[in-house]
This record gives sequence, structure tokens and C-alpha cells, in this order.
Amino acid sequence: MRDAETEVGPFEWLNVPAAIPDAGARKIAEARQAVLTKPPGSLGRLEDIAVRLAALQGTEQPCADRVRIAVFAGDHGVTAEGVSAFPQAVTAQMLENFARGGAAINVAACLLGATLEVINLGTAFDTGPLDMVMDYRLGPGTANFTVQPAMTVHQVACALAAGRHAAERARINASQLFIGGEMGIGNTTAAAALACALLDAPAERLVGPGTGVDGHGVKRKAEVIRRALERHSEHQSMPLEVLRRLGGFEIAALTGAYLACAHMNLPVLVDGFISSVSALTAVRLCPGAEHWFLFSHTSAEPGHRTVLDALDAQPLLDLGMRLGEGSGAAVAVPLLRMACALHNNMATFAEAQVSEKL
Amino acid sequence: MRDAETEVGPFEWLNVPAAIPDAGARKIAEARQAVLTKPPGSLGRLEDIAVRLAALQGTEQPCADRVRIAVFAGDHGVTAEGVSAFPQAVTAQMLENFARGGAAINVAACLLGATLEVINLGTAFDTGPLDMVMDYRLGPGTANFTVQPAMTVHQVACALAAGRHAAERARINASQLFIGGEMGIGNTTAAAALACALLDAPAERLVGPGTGVDGHGVKRKAEVIRRALERHSEHQSMPLEVLRRLGGFEIAALTGAYLACAHMNLPVLVDGFISSVSALTAVRLCPGAEHWFLFSHTSAEPGHRTVLDALDAQPLLDLGMRLGEGSGAAVAVPLLRMACALHNNMATFAEAQVSEKL
Repeated sequence: MRDAETEVGPFEWLNVPAAIPDAGARKIAEARQAVLTKPPGSLGRLEDIAVRLAALQGTEQPCADRVRIAVFAGDHGVTAEGVSAFPQAVTAQMLENFARGGAAINVAACLLGATLEVINLGTAFDTGPLDMVMDYRLGPGTANFTVQPAMTVHQVACALAAGRHAAERARINASQLFIGGEMGIGNTTAAAALACALLDAPAERLVGPGTGVDGHGVKRKAEVIRRALERHSEHQSMPLEVLRRLGGFEIAALTGAYLACAHMNLPVLVDGFISSVSALTAVRLCPGAEHWFLFSHTSAEPGHRTVLDALDAQPLLDLGMRLGEGSGAAVAVPLLRMACALHNNMATFAEAQVSEKL
Repeated sequence: MRDAETEVGPFEWLNVPAAIPDAGARKIAEARQAVLTKPPGSLGRLEDIAVRLAALQGTEQPCADRVRIAVFAGDHGVTAEGVSAFPQAVTAQMLENFARGGAAINVAACLLGATLEVINLGTAFDTGPLDMVMDYRLGPGTANFTVQPAMTVHQVACALAAGRHAAERARINASQLFIGGEMGIGNTTAAAALACALLDAPAERLVGPGTGVDGHGVKRKAEVIRRALERHSEHQSMPLEVLRRLGGFEIAALTGAYLACAHMNLPVLVDGFISSVSALTAVRLCPGAEHWFLFSHTSAEPGHRTVLDALDAQPLLDLGMRLGEGSGAAVAVPLLRMACALHNNMATFAEAQVSEKL
């Protein structure tokens, strides 16, 4: 006899519906914003953020003090096509840099008092054991997706689960906000290919310089993506299969993490281009997940706007950043904290005996 | 015999030239940004901020930890023309709110660990003595500038000096960054009038809803400004006289504070519309002062863009804020701190043994 409980497949959890934000908490927060000692609306986007966080956290006192940052790393077979400005060895070297605390996201996490974890999903070069880097290696990078699917079914299931586990650790640690980051030489090419397939958009709209290839390199990336899209075109209507064929370990892990956050009522602050493509994938797999996503910044990577538009996202910052690692999201955390502090701690007109609008 | 030392007039200090940023420190900072473990340029505006602060502070380790916020308050005679959505009593009531810690800028300063001082330059309604509010009262608000100059020569000199004194206190306290804020019912009308005169622009380009007047109210503001500009038109080429005739106590104090910061090598983070008009006035009085001004945000007040363009300013944030008090600048402080932390604490390619660009 078939036992549904024990025979649940590795992808079944993706079908759990997204949680619903708390409409009551939203109304209470909106009412409070209207009576704080300021002209109504004068805090702009900070008012929206406080109200949204109140609804997502189901509270009258939204808070973004306890922040969890999980950085997922993995290599990409498509780098064999010469799509990156940096050698593939950099992915593993940057894991060592994370372990020693020298990368941008280390410095940012430290300044924010955020907890940081790094998950190695599979680098082409070996690092040996590293402090604070979790070993989830699924292979020496993905396969070259111009030739075959980037991941096996087992690999994409494990990568999605690795992301879910990171979200669960964040939940267990009582985090109030989840940030996912990524590191992987070649991953703007994989993310662009995945976005092209999900949005049925031409390669030209999604490619860009990534870590810094020149105009010639951008053209080569577009050509590589065109070949990959052609090879995998018959699967374009199935988001999970598209993710497996064109994504990457860290892109799938981010997707799994974002989905699990949407299942577990944990607000997500999405970083840049690659993270947004993962967010888009998550929404395609689980409509409603988007309620849990706040968007931190518009990347300098030109394809980001197309992805943001598809998600109807209005990021908070536009600082020309294009680093990844979750760094853009980290930079936006103080805006959320300020929004919460103002919401929670300002006096009302009645408390301060200040006259209201004429 | 004439003694130049003792006969220095109250406006002589305005002629001191602005300090020159440290070009050597800038070069060292630029060189460091190029070798930190990130694709060159990938931190976007955060790289520029770190480099600029290094040049302004004359150091290899720029820092925005010690922040001073001075909020200047004053009333405006032009409110008699019905230009504001709030009653004039609110200026004094908000001083009481500042003293009790309930306003947005109190909450923001507390979150940032910034020191906050409030300077009363003259409200129409009395407050009695208030903790932490300095008494620099120059009258019960300015005169109605549609009828006569807003300030006497003595008043504008005292207001400018009040700003200089605030900047000097910041310098004495070893502040690394100065933020000026303002509170004054009617002050978007005064700031718009002043900007119109300085930029030779029509009222329509500079007026807006302020704290929240409707379309009809905006038209009335424009009409009031047109009448004022006509009355004072013969003095339009003299910035100091324009400030005296069309400005306000707090607008003049901000101008004096910004100028003194530019004299004393103290970087300024400029807030929104009114603060930017004061910054523009400072630059007209002392070309070169602009090197010391960083711009925090683009206000929702529509005239702000015109003023920012005239200053060739690219603000960091665009969050639809329009509160004043220095609040937009306060919200941007964490971006400066993040820029400094990344600049000072990230590993270089050599330190981390990470491969550079191919």
C-alpha cells in the first residue's frame, strides 16, 4: 500500500501555498502612520515599509533587528564558453575570503550585527574545510548548459532543499528578516538564461557585463544564451525544469530559501539581479510568494530592470551596485530599521498635543 | 586710526574661502577601492562616497560614526497669506515635541547614536523654556515678505551666526559629519521664493504642496511668491540681500552652518528641499563650498529637482520623503557608514589571494 507520508517526493514541498500576510496588523499600522507627528505621507517609502513589515510579521511593532544572511556559492559549467571577466578559481577563493571575513558581505554583516552563514554547493576548485562554510557540495559546479542540463534532478532537489534548510535555520534563530546572497563565477549568464526562459524574452534584454566583461563579451554571453535557450526550448513552460536546465546550484538554493520563507512567514529582503531571478522563479513555482519579498536595490546589471518589472517590484535603492553576495540587500537593512523605529517610537499628534492639518 | 581687527562687520566671515579637499587622500582612497576583493566599481555610489569622505576628512580611514544634527526652527510672516496646510502654532508645538523626544528626527538621531541639538530662532507662539532647545529668538517669526523684507539686517546676521555657532559646536565635538534640519510652518514658500530669485526661475517651477496643501493651495503659493519676487526684484543679483528679503531665520541659519562647515573642513550631509536651497545660497555666497556638501535624498517636493540640478547634485536616496527636520539626511547616514566600513575593512586581492580580472 502506498504511504503518502513516507513517499513524499523531493519536490512536494514546493506545492505548499505561500502564507498570507496579516491584514489586521496592516490596518493597525496604517492607522498609526496617519497620526504620527508628521504630515501624513511625508516619510514616503519608509511608511510603506513599516506597514508591510507589520503585516508580514503580524505585529504592531515591526522590527528588523535580527537579520540572517545566507550566502550560497557554486560554480557554473557555462564558464567554459568564456562568459566571465574573472577566472573560475575565484569562486573557491572567495569562499576562503568569506571564511576569513574579508569580503564585502562579511564587513556589511558585521556592521549590521547580522548573522552570516556561507553554503558551498559545489565549486570547481577545492577549498579544503573552511570555518563557517557549510559543505553541501553537489558536484564540481554545474554542467555546461549549452550542451546538457545544468543539473541532474537529484542536484536541483538538493540545491532547493539546501536553501530551505537555510531558511529554517533563520526561522529557528528567530530572525526577523532573511537575506540570501550568492557567489559563483558565471552566474549572471545562468541567471540571464533562466530569466529569458521564464519571461520569454530575448537574450539581449537580460545580458550585461556581470563582473565586468566588455561589449564583445556581452555579445558572446547573448550568443551562448541563445544556443542554450534553443537546446532547452521544449521545457520552457515548466519553471522547475527550466531551473534545472539553465539555473545553477546557488540560484536554485536561493529559490528554495525564498519559497521556504514565504511558507514560514519570514520576510525576505531580495538583493540584485541573480537573487531577483531566483525570486521570479520562486513566484512561478508558488504564486503568492511575492508578498514576502521586499526588494532592496536596482542593480547596475542592465537586465535587472526587466526582472523587477516582471515582479512589479519597486526597490528601495539605486546606487549602481553590482557585487552580489547579498551586499545590496545588506546596504538597505538600515532603511528597514529606520522605518520600524520611526513607526514604533514617534509620538502621535494626541500624545504630543500638536495640531493636525487644517 | 581704523582697526581692521575690531571693526570687522557681522558679514565679513562670509568672505572666508571654502577649504580645499585633500587631493592626496582622494588618490590613496581611489587606489584602495581598485584592489578590494570585488569587481572594480561594483559597489557603485558607495565607492564614490568613501573616496569623497576620505578627501574631505583628509584621511585614509573615512568615518561617519560621530554625526551632529542641528535643527533650526523659526516662523514665517508669509503664513498670513494662507500658504500652509498646518496652523502656525505647530512650529512651537513641534519644538515641544523635539524637547520630549517624540519627533522623527529624535527617533532617527537615537537610532544613529547622533547628537541632536535644536535651536529656536523665533517662533510666533511662545513655548517657555524647553530642555535641549537653545534660545536664539530673533523675533516672533519673520515679517511677511510680500509686504516688506523678511528680516532686518541685524536678524539675518544673527541667524547666519547662529548657524555658524552650531557648526563650530559640531567641530569642537569632533563630529565627522554635520546635518542641518529645519522646522518652520511656511518655510517651503520662503525657500521656493528664495530659490526663484537665486535661479531666476518662475514660481511654478519651485512651488509644491509642502506639508500638504492641495492644487488650489499650490496656485496660491505661486501667486504669493510672484508678488514677493516683484516687490524685491531690484535686489535679485545680491544673494545675501535676497536671503534677507525672502528667506527665513532657519534658512539663513542653515546657510551659515553650511558655510562654516565648508570653512572648517567638516563634511555636510544635506537634507531636502529647504536645506538644499540653503546649500544653494551658501554656494552663491562662497563658491567652492559645494565640495563639502553630500546630498542625501530627492524630496517629494517637486521644486527640489530644480535646486539639485542647479547644484549639480546626485542625491543618494529617492524615497518620496518630504518631512524636513533633517530626517532624509539622517536616513542616509547608514549608507555613509557602510561605505566607510567597506572601504576600511574589506580585504584586498593580495591579502585574500584572490585572482584579479582576466
